[in-house]
Amino acid sequence: MRILELLAKKRDGGELSAEELSEFIAGCVSGNLPDYQISAMLMAICIRGMTPRETAALTLAMAKSGETVDLSSIPGVKVDKHSTGGVGDKTTLIALPLAASLGAHAAKMSGRGLGFTGGTLDKLESIPGFRTDLSREEFLGVVRRVGVSVIGQSGNLDPADKKLYALRDVTGTVESLPLIASSIMSKKLASGADAILLDVKTGSGAFMKDFSDSLALAQAMVSIGAHAGRKTVALLTDMDAPLGRAAGNALEVAEACRTLQGQGPEDLTALCVTLAAELVRFSSGAPLSDCRARVQEALQSGAGFRKLCEMVKAQGGDVRALLDPSRLPQAAAQDVFTADRDGFLFHMDTQACGLAAAQLGAGREKLGDAVDPGAGLLFEKKPGAYVRKGEPLVRLYGKDAASCRAAKERLAAAIELRETPPKPRPLVFARVTADGVEKFF
Amino acid sequence: MRILELLAKKRDGGELSAEELSEFIAGCVSGNLPDYQISAMLMAICIRGMTPRETAALTLAMAKSGETVDLSSIPGVKVDKHSTGGVGDKTTLIALPLAASLGAHAAKMSGRGLGFTGGTLDKLESIPGFRTDLSREEFLGVVRRVGVSVIGQSGNLDPADKKLYALRDVTGTVESLPLIASSIMSKKLASGADAILLDVKTGSGAFMKDFSDSLALAQAMVSIGAHAGRKTVALLTDMDAPLGRAAGNALEVAEACRTLQGQGPEDLTALCVTLAAELVRFSSGAPLSDCRARVQEALQSGAGFRKLCEMVKAQGGDVRALLDPSRLPQAAAQDVFTADRDGFLFHMDTQACGLAAAQLGAGREKLGDAVDPGAGLLFEKKPGAYVRKGEPLVRLYGKDAASCRAAKERLAAAIELRETPPKPRPLVFARVTADGVEKFF
Repeated sequence: MRILELLAKKRDGGELSAEELSEFIAGCVSGNLPDYQISAMLMAICIRGMTPRETAALTLAMAKSGETVDLSSIPGVKVDKHSTGGVGDKTTLIALPLAASLGAHAAKMSGRGLGFTGGTLDKLESIPGFRTDLSREEFLGVVRRVGVSVIGQSGNLDPADKKLYALRDVTGTVESLPLIASSIMSKKLASGADAILLDVKTGSGAFMKDFSDSLALAQAMVSIGAHAGRKTVALLTDMDAPLGRAAGNALEVAEACRTLQGQGPEDLTALCVTLAAELVRFSSGAPLSDCRARVQEALQSGAGFRKLCEMVKAQGGDVRALLDPSRLPQAAAQDVFTADRDGFLFHMDTQACGLAAAQLGAGREKLGDAVDPGAGLLFEKKPGAYVRKGEPLVRLYGKDAASCRAAKERLAAAIELRETPPKPRPLVFARVTADGVEKFF
Repeated sequence: MRILELLAKKRDGGELSAEELSEFIAGCVSGNLPDYQISAMLMAICIRGMTPRETAALTLAMAKSGETVDLSSIPGVKVDKHSTGGVGDKTTLIALPLAASLGAHAAKMSGRGLGFTGGTLDKLESIPGFRTDLSREEFLGVVRRVGVSVIGQSGNLDPADKKLYALRDVTGTVESLPLIASSIMSKKLASGADAILLDVKTGSGAFMKDFSDSLALAQAMVSIGAHAGRKTVALLTDMDAPLGRAAGNALEVAEACRTLQGQGPEDLTALCVTLAAELVRFSSGAPLSDCRARVQEALQSGAGFRKLCEMVKAQGGDVRALLDPSRLPQAAAQDVFTADRDGFLFHMDTQACGLAAAQLGAGREKLGDAVDPGAGLLFEKKPGAYVRKGEPLVRLYGKDAASCRAAKERLAAAIELRETPPKPRPLVFARVTADGVEKFF
C-alpha cells in the first residue's frame, strides 16, 4: 500500500523523494501499478506541480526505465537537438549537417509523434530510399563515419514515457509543465548525448503559445539537464509565423537543401546558423561568436549540404533527390490562396496554418496514419509583407481539389491583412542555460 | 472526448454543472468511463474541492444511479438516521425503537461496512435468528406494522457509490469532504426517507477527529439534504471516549436492552434520548422539548424496549435473548485490563480501543471477514473516573488467551492515567440545520 502514501503526499502538496519517484516509475513500467493509480498520481502532479528536484528525479527515473543508448564508441562530445515543434520547422535537416561538417557528432533519435506536418522522420522518409530504421550498430556507424545520423526511436527506449504519455492523453493531464519537461528530457537522456540543445518554440504555432509558459518549460528542461550532468542550452525561438516558406514533408526537404546551398529564406537560415553554432560550441568548446563564423563558412562553402548528402547516402536515400527536387514526391493537386484586398500581412494563426497543411495530407491525426509526402503549403508571403489584392499568399499542394478547397477556407480564417504592419518579433527571444536567462528583446 | 473537458475544468478549479456531474456519474455506472478517467476526476475533486452546489448535484446523481426505495406505502413522515461511526455506538438499536414507540416510522437500510466493532447489521445478527436480508416487501411490511425495521442494503442501491468508493480506497482520495458527504448522503437519499438525522462523531474514535472537520462534514451533509428537499438535522456528538460501556456486537445488544429498560450508562442514555427526540420531532412536528419529554416517558415505561422486541420478533430474531443476555453469543476467553497505578482516567485513545476490540474478533479488516459476535470490550471506567492500582479498567472477551493478551497491550498504550482529571467534554457539541449551527459549548 506504499503507493497510497505517495498519492496522499502529492495530493497534499508534498515533495516526493527520488526513491519514491523511482518506485512510482518502476511500478508504471512493471505493470504492478494499475492505470487508475497512475492516473490519480498524474492528476495530483498536474494540479500540485513539482519542485525542480522532483522533476529532475522523475525524469532520471523515466530515462532509466528501459534501454539507454551507449554512445561511448563515438569520439568526442556527442550532441543532440530537440525542438518542441511548430509549422515549417526543418532545422534538424540543416543545423545538424552544418555542425557535423565542423566536427560535431550528432546522434539523434526522433519520435514519430503527431504533428501538423509530420515529424523529422516523415520529412526524411520523403527522400526515396531513406531508412530511419537503422539497427543500433548501423546508427552508431553512421554517426562515427559521417558525424550525423537521424533515426526513429527504436527498441525499449523510455517505456515509462510511453505509459505516462498514453494515460496523460486520456486523463486531462497533458498540460503539466513538469510532465511535459520530463517527457521530452527523459527521451533525450536515454538517447545518450553529452550535450543537448533545446529549441523551445513560442507563439501561435507552438505547443506553448505564451512566452512565459515557453520560458518556464525551457528553464525546467535546462534544470533537468543540469541535474543529469548534461550540458544543456535552450533557445526560445519564434513560432508566431511558419518557419521559412515550406510546410510539408518533401517541400521542407527541398527548402532545407536550398538553405544549405545558401538560397534559403532569411528567418530559417538565421535560426539554423544560431542552432548549429550552439552545437559546434558544445563539441569544440570554442566561443559562440567563433562557432557562428565557422557555421557561416560551412554554409557558404556547401560543406553543410555535402554533409546532408553523405548522411542521406549512408542511410540508403537517393541523393539525386537532394540535388533535383523534382525527384521528391509531388502532390496530385495544386491550388493558390490569394489576397482578397490590399494590405499588410499582419498575422498568421500558425496553428491553423498547420491544420490546413494536415488537411492537405502533410500530417497525421493519429499514430499509424500515413502522410502524403508531397502535400503541404508554400508561404509566398510572410507577416510584415505588403500585398496587393489577387497576389498569391500561399500555394497549396494536396491529394485532390476538394482537400485544397477545404484548406483554403482554413487559411482564409487564419491569415489577417491590415492597413498597418505588425510589430516585428525577434527570431530568438532568449537563451537559457543553467546559469540563467539571457533575453534578446 | 467530453470527459476530457470535465477533467480539465475540475483540474483548473472550475465548477462542474449538474448536467456535467450527471454525465460523469452515468459514465461511472455504465462502464463507459474507464477507471483511470474516474480516478483522475476523483483526485482533481479531492484537491480542488467542490462548491455546495456541486456536492449536492453529485450526490443527487449518485442517489439516482440505481434503484431507489419507494416508502410511499408507509403513512406519515419516514425518518432515517445515520452515524459516522465510532466505538460502542449502538444508538440505532435504542433511538429508533424509542421513536417508533412514539409513532415515528423508521426505515433504515444499513451498510455492512468496515469498522472496529462491526456495524449495526453485525450487532443485530448476534441475536439468534435475526434476519437482515428481508425482501423489499417484508421490509416495508415491518416498517408499516411495527414502525421500525433495520436491514442490509440490498439490490442495486447507489451503484455509483460502490464504484467511486472502491476507487477512492485505492487512489488516495478517501479524505475528501465532498466525496465523503456525497457517499453517505447518496445512500440516504436513495433509501427514500423524508427526514434524515445525522449523528456526526468527533474525537479520537471518530472518522473525523477534529471538531472543525466534523462540523464541515455535518454542514456539507445538511446542505445536500436541503438541496434534495429532505429535512436534515446533524448533531455533532462526542467520540473521544467509547460510547456507553460495551464495544462488541452481542455485548452492545445487551447494553442496548439494559438502556431501553432504564439501566443504561448515563452518556449512552442521554445521547439516545436526544437522537430519539429529533426523530419524533421530524415525525410529529412538535417542539423539541415536548418530544424529549415523550421520549423520556417511553424509556421509563418500557415502550421503547417493547418496540425493539417487536422489531426483533418481526425479523425472525429470538426475543428471549433480549430478556436474558446469557442467550446471546459468548466469547471463548476472558481477561481483565487493570490500572497499573492510582490516578484519574485522563484519556482513552478511542480508535486504539476500537482496534483492540477488532483484534479480539469484534470487527473485520476486510469485507467478507466473519466477526465473532461474542467478542469485545466492557469499559469498567470512563474518562474522569478516579481509579486505584489493580482496579479493573476494561474487561476483554476474545476467541483465545493470545488475542486477549495482544488487545491488552494495545489498551495499555491507549489508556492514559494522570494525577489530574480531564476537562469534561460535552456529549453534544452542536446541532446543525439548514438554518445554521447551534453550539452547546
